[in-house]
Amino acid sequence: MSARDPMEFDLVVIGGGSGGLAGAFRAAAHGARVALLEPSELGGTCVNAGCVPKKAMWLAADLASRIGQAADLGFDVPPRPAFAWREFITDRQRYIAGIHASYRRRLDEAGIVWMPQRGRLVDARTVETGDGVRLRARHVLIATGSQPVHPELPGAELGVVSDDFFHWNEAPPRVALVGGGYISVELAAVLQALGSNVDIHARSARLLSASDAEIVEQLQEHYRHLGIGLHLGAEPAALERDGDGIVVRGKGGARSGPYDQVLLAVGRRACTADLGLDAAGVRVDARGNIEVDALQTTSVDGVHAVGDVTGKATLTPVAIAAARRLMDRLFGGQADAKLDYDDIPTVVFSHPPLGAVGMTEAQARGAHGDAVRVYRTKFRPMLQALADSPLCSLFKLVCVASGDAPAQQRVVGIHLLGDAADEILQGFAVALKMGATLADLHDTVALHPTSAEELVLLR
Amino acid sequence: MSARDPMEFDLVVIGGGSGGLAGAFRAAAHGARVALLEPSELGGTCVNAGCVPKKAMWLAADLASRIGQAADLGFDVPPRPAFAWREFITDRQRYIAGIHASYRRRLDEAGIVWMPQRGRLVDARTVETGDGVRLRARHVLIATGSQPVHPELPGAELGVVSDDFFHWNEAPPRVALVGGGYISVELAAVLQALGSNVDIHARSARLLSASDAEIVEQLQEHYRHLGIGLHLGAEPAALERDGDGIVVRGKGGARSGPYDQVLLAVGRRACTADLGLDAAGVRVDARGNIEVDALQTTSVDGVHAVGDVTGKATLTPVAIAAARRLMDRLFGGQADAKLDYDDIPTVVFSHPPLGAVGMTEAQARGAHGDAVRVYRTKFRPMLQALADSPLCSLFKLVCVASGDAPAQQRVVGIHLLGDAADEILQGFAVALKMGATLADLHDTVALHPTSAEELVLLR
Repeated sequence: MSARDPMEFDLVVIGGGSGGLAGAFRAAAHGARVALLEPSELGGTCVNAGCVPKKAMWLAADLASRIGQAADLGFDVPPRPAFAWREFITDRQRYIAGIHASYRRRLDEAGIVWMPQRGRLVDARTVETGDGVRLRARHVLIATGSQPVHPELPGAELGVVSDDFFHWNEAPPRVALVGGGYISVELAAVLQALGSNVDIHARSARLLSASDAEIVEQLQEHYRHLGIGLHLGAEPAALERDGDGIVVRGKGGARSGPYDQVLLAVGRRACTADLGLDAAGVRVDARGNIEVDALQTTSVDGVHAVGDVTGKATLTPVAIAAARRLMDRLFGGQADAKLDYDDIPTVVFSHPPLGAVGMTEAQARGAHGDAVRVYRTKFRPMLQALADSPLCSLFKLVCVASGDAPAQQRVVGIHLLGDAADEILQGFAVALKMGATLADLHDTVALHPTSAEELVLLR
Repeated sequence: MSARDPMEFDLVVIGGGSGGLAGAFRAAAHGARVALLEPSELGGTCVNAGCVPKKAMWLAADLASRIGQAADLGFDVPPRPAFAWREFITDRQRYIAGIHASYRRRLDEAGIVWMPQRGRLVDARTVETGDGVRLRARHVLIATGSQPVHPELPGAELGVVSDDFFHWNEAPPRVALVGGGYISVELAAVLQALGSNVDIHARSARLLSASDAEIVEQLQEHYRHLGIGLHLGAEPAALERDGDGIVVRGKGGARSGPYDQVLLAVGRRACTADLGLDAAGVRVDARGNIEVDALQTTSVDGVHAVGDVTGKATLTPVAIAAARRLMDRLFGGQADAKLDYDDIPTVVFSHPPLGAVGMTEAQARGAHGDAVRVYRTKFRPMLQALADSPLCSLFKLVCVASGDAPAQQRVVGIHLLGDAADEILQGFAVALKMGATLADLHDTVALHPTSAEELVLLR
């Protein structure tokens, strides 16, 4: 082999986020020779500017809120103690550095060739790195993820995006979040708990427009109670400087602010620039996502994609699960392996968290009309009741009934808003995916006193 | 009807704890005329000296521990703040008073005749109240619960039992808990977190002898780390006064202490005294529990029992579920209704909590030998990792395999030790009862980052 000959692999992975790494590890476990191209930190958005640092900030916010409850319940603590954000960031980044180190060690142990380079398709079998090295492979996996959209709004340059949030070292006194999606909802409560005064500006009439409407209504009640200003159904038209601050101007002319920071959380877009998709003939859809079939394969045989770059259920565990099953198919002899995209559970780390799997009530009524039965309970978890807080959890089951008996009522949606919803949902998501009926829930003895038990006691 | 004629009912319930109340409400919902006899506060042990006040104290202890974590993570709070126990008790008792009021209102609404009286069987159809009124009924339900055993130990009168704990107004500086069961384990961590120095003295070689051994080992490591002294395999022989304190003397002569309080948690016994069981011919087993068949009926036709007084799976939700099904059978036309006692999930509110459903590893190996496969993960939840705490969660699946494929591995036991285990377990208990295999867990997409996701990622 001369210096000019391309290096040969079974698999080249472009992108070292969760999906790319999971694919690389699984392929290597099946004995494939794997190269991974990632010019930035390993772990992608999830580890560096998403799930992990977000959850860390959420945990800090949760501690702040519990300290407030503790002060109400007889502990000698200030209800809103000072928080050394910078000190916490040190712990957070140490934790993240540990994840990076673990990835590097595992790549090494698995014999995966990691190059800190960008990758670009030259053709369906050839990838060129940023410094011009060519790699050939039977299969290519594109897992380059997504990035925050910078909206084309006058004055948008005055705002920042979620990536920037993770570089902050303190809570800005006044923050506006533009957008009604989960990123806005999550960061709003974190910032409010850690000392900011927060407003959300969203075009939609309610937050989280894909979530169950009744659950969102309850969440909005929580947010208003926390002091978060909700400017809904109000499309921001521009950001304007106003002295030291920034003002959000609405379509109707109304001005809100000034704010010290305006965080634009209006969506994310697949990272497909300079990937050589045209050269290889890989098709992209109207929203800029790489088109894949149910087997994660693009329009070009041998070129595959997983995760946010496909725009399908853009969640870290989905990218991981899709990548693993793809590699089981390509290199593990499992011809039918593919991810089932039905009934994927999701959690929004709002305050309190919101967990959901399956259909919303509205979706179920659209599909099944009068066969839909909804069971709900609105209750105060014991800690809230002890602290005499007015805020309630709302748990909701959406069933499709072929008769009145619980065994004739299939659970098609579970929607949880309240403390511990993030942890409660996983097991119920297993049960729903197994085809649980209301009778299966009733047949399981409750765990008392918990919030989770409410779900098996619903009637 | 003359004044001497007995009052006629469809059902007389003796005992107004969780099981008795659930039975009364369900029977009334089916149209039965119901009398309920309860001389003390409604709600029984669960509401007054068990689950509810225990969980309240556990929540206080949990807040104390989170404040400690918050102090480590940049919040300006004292790591062990003063706790106004007496103030907290006010909130706790207000909460409990609310439950009492709710029960009274619901009894009233349901048209149930509540008499604040003891009840004693005169014969299988007749119950006499403490003040001599006779009630006749087609069915009698005994749900008188259980009470702590006062052991026959020299000096036992120096100690107290769990009922007494709920009258305390402060954390005693030095506490010994005698017993290795869940009550001892729960109260030990509560007291340690709220300021006591705690020792556990237990005859058994390990705590929680019915729980999975590996999980208990991990729990004991947590307890030692919290500073709780574990005197295991050491049967206490006597309590002795020593100045202002109390000393625990072991069988070998070793003396531990002195302690300010010694809490004896060596078991509970069915409350069957003065119930007229002999008069009616209701049989009691060697341990003093009322014998019932699978339909909750005693040796006497028409006389039924549920809950702790039967000694079967002595948990509040079991009593409630058994009572409801019994009433569905007696008054609801559901001839086969009965509680299935298999795979009842349980939570010990230790620190951290311990949740379990199904077989321990040892039980499974005893029943299924080499077909048993165990999957476990020991991990630090993010909050622990951020605070650089050494303590790990341990989650464990016990499967019985008919082959290597995940779909051939039936999950027969789930054992969780760690933060949120109390809330995580419920949904997985539904899945286990539905017959989940390892493949069902794998087929469910993970929720990231949570602790619960570890269970669907186990391989």
